[in-house]
Amino acid sequence: MIRLDDLSTKAPKELDKSQIKEETQGLLDRLSELQNRLYAGSKYAVLVIFQGMDASGKDGAIKKVLGFLNPMGVRAFPFKAPTDEEKAHDFLWRIHQKIPAKGMIHAFNRSHYEDVLITRVHGWCDDATAKKRFADINHFEQLLQHNGTVIFKFYLHVSRKEQQERLEERVEDPRKMWKHDVADQEEAKHWDTYIKMYEEVIENCQVAPWVIVPADQNWYKEYLVAKTITEGLEALNLKYPENPL
Amino acid sequence: MIRLDDLSTKAPKELDKSQIKEETQGLLDRLSELQNRLYAGSKYAVLVIFQGMDASGKDGAIKKVLGFLNPMGVRAFPFKAPTDEEKAHDFLWRIHQKIPAKGMIHAFNRSHYEDVLITRVHGWCDDATAKKRFADINHFEQLLQHNGTVIFKFYLHVSRKEQQERLEERVEDPRKMWKHDVADQEEAKHWDTYIKMYEEVIENCQVAPWVIVPADQNWYKEYLVAKTITEGLEALNLKYPENPL
Repeated sequence: MIRLDDLSTKAPKELDKSQIKEETQGLLDRLSELQNRLYAGSKYAVLVIFQGMDASGKDGAIKKVLGFLNPMGVRAFPFKAPTDEEKAHDFLWRIHQKIPAKGMIHAFNRSHYEDVLITRVHGWCDDATAKKRFADINHFEQLLQHNGTVIFKFYLHVSRKEQQERLEERVEDPRKMWKHDVADQEEAKHWDTYIKMYEEVIENCQVAPWVIVPADQNWYKEYLVAKTITEGLEALNLKYPENPL
Repeated sequence: MIRLDDLSTKAPKELDKSQIKEETQGLLDRLSELQNRLYAGSKYAVLVIFQGMDASGKDGAIKKVLGFLNPMGVRAFPFKAPTDEEKAHDFLWRIHQKIPAKGMIHAFNRSHYEDVLITRVHGWCDDATAKKRFADINHFEQLLQHNGTVIFKFYLHVSRKEQQERLEERVEDPRKMWKHDVADQEEAKHWDTYIKMYEEVIENCQVAPWVIVPADQNWYKEYLVAKTITEGLEALNLKYPENPL
């Protein structure tokens, strides 16, 4: 069983911030070329899932890593509390609709994993239901993989201290105030339960592997996300379609 | 392994047509009351899948059995050749979007099963892919069941002779001519391969059970479909929600 408290939320000490930022830019240049091939070939699709506590930097990761790409081939979707119509269906119904077509990259800010996270923390989903959902999630990700969808799953790992600083910043910085939500401080009180539920998710849902990203420093988070996606796409050996003439 | 050729396409000889039609009407009256409870309670959803050769009577079954119900709680969807957008996603993507919300009954004229039927007959889907799709289908139906969806799957079993008579009727009867499609006679040539592929589907996809309906006579087909759905819903012991006051 993975223990998140044993894993650092910080970049390795020996790393040099400005050098890493330069490397990130190099990765993004390569990613931009890979996206072009992905779109042209339309053989694979890419799904990038971001999970993490409030203020762990999910939006920032999407903006800084995927915001660099051609928007024709990228879409980002946030998953918030489900609507009445969504609740009248299985929990994967709204997710499946937003799955990338071949050639596309879709980024999810939160995802189907909320249905085994916040729901369990608040007791809206019991253990027996959670067990079924783990199986449903694994089968669903398998279906997507069968169809040529490459799935990246990032858990953005921040410390409780860093989260608190960021939440307080939202109250003070006019550029961040729109993100302030009183409910976040309520949720933060359940920190330990959230960590436990994340550990169970990571343990039980490995059809596509989780990458645990130390996320206290944005420069390191962006580097690791960019590196994972870029190297993952390079492994596909994407090629432009041949001249059809 | 099931052998469809060994199963009759006709009603048992001892049955009396007018008596069965009367019984069907009784079943539909009960079904109408059950639908009301299903809709009011919104605890379960019902998915009714019709598969069968061309002219096996799928449309007629939907019209005669489900056309009797309150349209507020019933929707019917045909699945024809997939669009380009649908083809750019996994084969269950378009299906999942049409899954019933709780309280609803949805009828499918053809379904995700086409992706392991016509596609295999024409060699667009190889055996290895079919095997993955059988698993994907089973997991998908499991997901729906986890969420309280009751699934009925009907294979409408007509004889080759009856199919030919109905296809010829379509050329002659002005009321049926709109259904005439020259491609149907082309498909009919692959009869034996279709039968074999249906046998494999029935064998491999039993998360929700198949009901094989002798379908040469419409009165018996309608009776058996109405009986299966009505008795299936009666087993749920559907109740009106209690007075909330």
